[in-house]
Amino acid sequence: MPTESGYHMTPDDFRQFGRAVVDWIADYYENIEDYPVLAQVEPGEIRAKLPKGPPLVGESFEDILADISDLILPGITHWQSPNFFAFWPANASGPSILADLLSSGLGVQGMSWVTSPACTELETHVLDWLAGMLGLPEKFMSHTAGGGVIQDTASSATLTALLAARERATNFSSNERGCDGQLVAYASTQAHSSIEKAVKIAGIGKRNLRLIEVDRNYAMVAEALVQHVQVDRAAGLIPCFVCATLGTTSSNALDPIQDIGTICKNEGIWLHVDAAMSGTAALCPEYRFIQEGLELADSYCFNPHKWMFTNFDCDCFYVDDRTALVQTLSVLPEYLRNKPTESGEVLDYRDWHIQLGRRFRSLKLWFVIRYYGVEGLQYHIRRHVELAKRFASWVERHPDFELAAPIPLNLVCFRHRKGDGFNRRIMEAVNQSGNIYLTHTTLDDRFVLRLCVGQTYTEEVHVRRAWELLQRTAAALNEA
Amino acid sequence: MPTESGYHMTPDDFRQFGRAVVDWIADYYENIEDYPVLAQVEPGEIRAKLPKGPPLVGESFEDILADISDLILPGITHWQSPNFFAFWPANASGPSILADLLSSGLGVQGMSWVTSPACTELETHVLDWLAGMLGLPEKFMSHTAGGGVIQDTASSATLTALLAARERATNFSSNERGCDGQLVAYASTQAHSSIEKAVKIAGIGKRNLRLIEVDRNYAMVAEALVQHVQVDRAAGLIPCFVCATLGTTSSNALDPIQDIGTICKNEGIWLHVDAAMSGTAALCPEYRFIQEGLELADSYCFNPHKWMFTNFDCDCFYVDDRTALVQTLSVLPEYLRNKPTESGEVLDYRDWHIQLGRRFRSLKLWFVIRYYGVEGLQYHIRRHVELAKRFASWVERHPDFELAAPIPLNLVCFRHRKGDGFNRRIMEAVNQSGNIYLTHTTLDDRFVLRLCVGQTYTEEVHVRRAWELLQRTAAALNEA
Repeated sequence: MPTESGYHMTPDDFRQFGRAVVDWIADYYENIEDYPVLAQVEPGEIRAKLPKGPPLVGESFEDILADISDLILPGITHWQSPNFFAFWPANASGPSILADLLSSGLGVQGMSWVTSPACTELETHVLDWLAGMLGLPEKFMSHTAGGGVIQDTASSATLTALLAARERATNFSSNERGCDGQLVAYASTQAHSSIEKAVKIAGIGKRNLRLIEVDRNYAMVAEALVQHVQVDRAAGLIPCFVCATLGTTSSNALDPIQDIGTICKNEGIWLHVDAAMSGTAALCPEYRFIQEGLELADSYCFNPHKWMFTNFDCDCFYVDDRTALVQTLSVLPEYLRNKPTESGEVLDYRDWHIQLGRRFRSLKLWFVIRYYGVEGLQYHIRRHVELAKRFASWVERHPDFELAAPIPLNLVCFRHRKGDGFNRRIMEAVNQSGNIYLTHTTLDDRFVLRLCVGQTYTEEVHVRRAWELLQRTAAALNEA
Repeated sequence: MPTESGYHMTPDDFRQFGRAVVDWIADYYENIEDYPVLAQVEPGEIRAKLPKGPPLVGESFEDILADISDLILPGITHWQSPNFFAFWPANASGPSILADLLSSGLGVQGMSWVTSPACTELETHVLDWLAGMLGLPEKFMSHTAGGGVIQDTASSATLTALLAARERATNFSSNERGCDGQLVAYASTQAHSSIEKAVKIAGIGKRNLRLIEVDRNYAMVAEALVQHVQVDRAAGLIPCFVCATLGTTSSNALDPIQDIGTICKNEGIWLHVDAAMSGTAALCPEYRFIQEGLELADSYCFNPHKWMFTNFDCDCFYVDDRTALVQTLSVLPEYLRNKPTESGEVLDYRDWHIQLGRRFRSLKLWFVIRYYGVEGLQYHIRRHVELAKRFASWVERHPDFELAAPIPLNLVCFRHRKGDGFNRRIMEAVNQSGNIYLTHTTLDDRFVLRLCVGQTYTEEVHVRRAWELLQRTAAALNEA
């Protein structure tokens, strides 16, 4: 039945139900280790429990909330469990969750400055803060010709960088004329799958993506890049974009940015650096070595929504020439025209990415940075790296296990000496136990286990128990 | 100082601070009409009040939250005010905000089925519910070869549709070879700016986008589309994509889907239908006439984050052939491989859009549909359309004002008879008053005021006061 305000939730009900949801989340975090980390359901099992059709008449909030526990939780793989070591972290934290709640409550659009000036100005400001906190080159800060913007994911940031590179290489005429099949992009064989996706989306084509050889540490061989560029130029093609990676997804390899950047400058190629997870490490001065040469890059991105306790989505994308973005992506229909935009005094972030609409995402970053402080963030990042290195030392000392790649930061690639099939069985067994969740990759065509230490609440006890479980599981499989 | 758990917020603190944020939001909605709808700040004013650098040591949550009121609110344009009539609605609602809070708290990634099965299965299920609620063609439901997915925005959905169209037209070889400058896309002169942006991004080029003439109701002239297609074919080009709009941004014009769809079927062209705001109207059977012919479309999108009380971001994108999407966007690196994916029994939504990462957005839709029920949603949509038509009737009866376009649903385009400059002065004056916020467009090169009735809490009193303010302002400007 509609109330005075129709069917809407009243502010008083919002207070009551809001408290219930806040308590539900607090309870969830208090009990999160009771759930199997990897959801133990079969395809279709969750869906089969849902009513076939929507309700004609509204239901009580209490009933809906109860279904989160009853129907949804069994189908959740718990990314916020301290026993989650799979893929990469996708961290939440208290201050981030509550800032995102404020963003939902305010419900503003930040597509243009005028549509909520604070949304644009706080974003610019906090991205400058962050550039300083990470020791990024000054040219990425907003008082220069460059600046930062929040994108949803590194996939979108990389695509945006590629588009700007495509346009610069064609003197901003490919937007007008379309791609001509002459442009070439480069990344290492270890680069993230989003590079291939971006090259396809931008109409450059997979055939014009060169995957450059890596060295024994899985980092791009700069000399090989030069050779590919020369071959392409000789064939009449136009090298336009290199994506270098700081911390590859497979093994956390660090491409040599200094060497790659020098090549790109000489060749007039756009260099984008993707540090999606590992970029956060630069909060600590002792890990800033990973960024050496970054002043040679045209664009850079990393994801606070991975390792910096800021819930998804939040990718920070920096460019040294914001005009290149606007020339690539700006479309200004009459219904979006307004005085501040036409004055040229403001930034309109809709011209910095694919989407038009955008929510107030900088609130999350602002809250996280202020609540933890720089020293709090450094403390937890150092702790994660230390725990990963401790785990690696245990692996190294074990007669049956071995490391499969260097461990510059928080990801350990390792394997049992008994071969691919055995490692796969270990992985499946520990994941099915529900005690931990880890995933794999292949390096040099061999199956490798990955243990990524980066979840907000992971402590030494969790890493130690994971190692004990892995040893126990290997021993049991050996005997079976 | 770190506590036992380091610098993290404890669950107890989360309970306490979470209540404070919930109360802050409830207070905000209770007082929202006290704030000027359009932020009354100068460029740089918000930023100037922020500390130059980040804090080294963490701050108290109370201090951070207080800054939302003190530093941020003055820079907010209040999209959730019932006096917001600008652009289009970007609605929030209680159940949606709280569901999104749960999504932040759970913090799961839905990129693959395995990474949280409930995230994928609830999304598929709710998008089927919604297809039924809107009376969409059955071919968009998941038990067929088609299905629905949540995208961030209609801009991204349109881009995704264009990419799938591009691939189908090139027999899925343009991903491999790149674009060749031969593909052509079509939309009306009134289509959203995102079409032009998508055509540029996809490497098709603005020169190969045809903007088709509209009739006196600003709807695409289907005969003109045929002619353009024929001319392009004669020139050796390949027509591949038509975007038709249900409810253009400027004036809510409805393109004739039936006629356009017939042409597209005959010509083998992908038809995408963009109903970003107006699609929600189809919740009410009496407004479903807008969808006539939709069974001829290859893809369709509308945004519950506009008019359906579901906070940003939430665009629902439907295709009748999900294989086309996967063939276009799938990239499967080793580190994402898993048994359920390889079994073919599950959907992996990362292959349905640009990004890899994705949050649990279907929770918002599920909560909104269940809390309001179908009848609650219908009630409010009907009410908004009725209020828009009432406003239009007042305009029509006034000697000095006139309507500038038909009013099929909830958007009224109108103007004062005294010409462009006078209408611009009216707009600037009412927006500067802070009492309402409305924006403009141009139709037939004339400046037109737009009043969009769709904000969650807009009632008759708000629409009536807006009309009184407009009359009063016009009279005052007349005398000045």
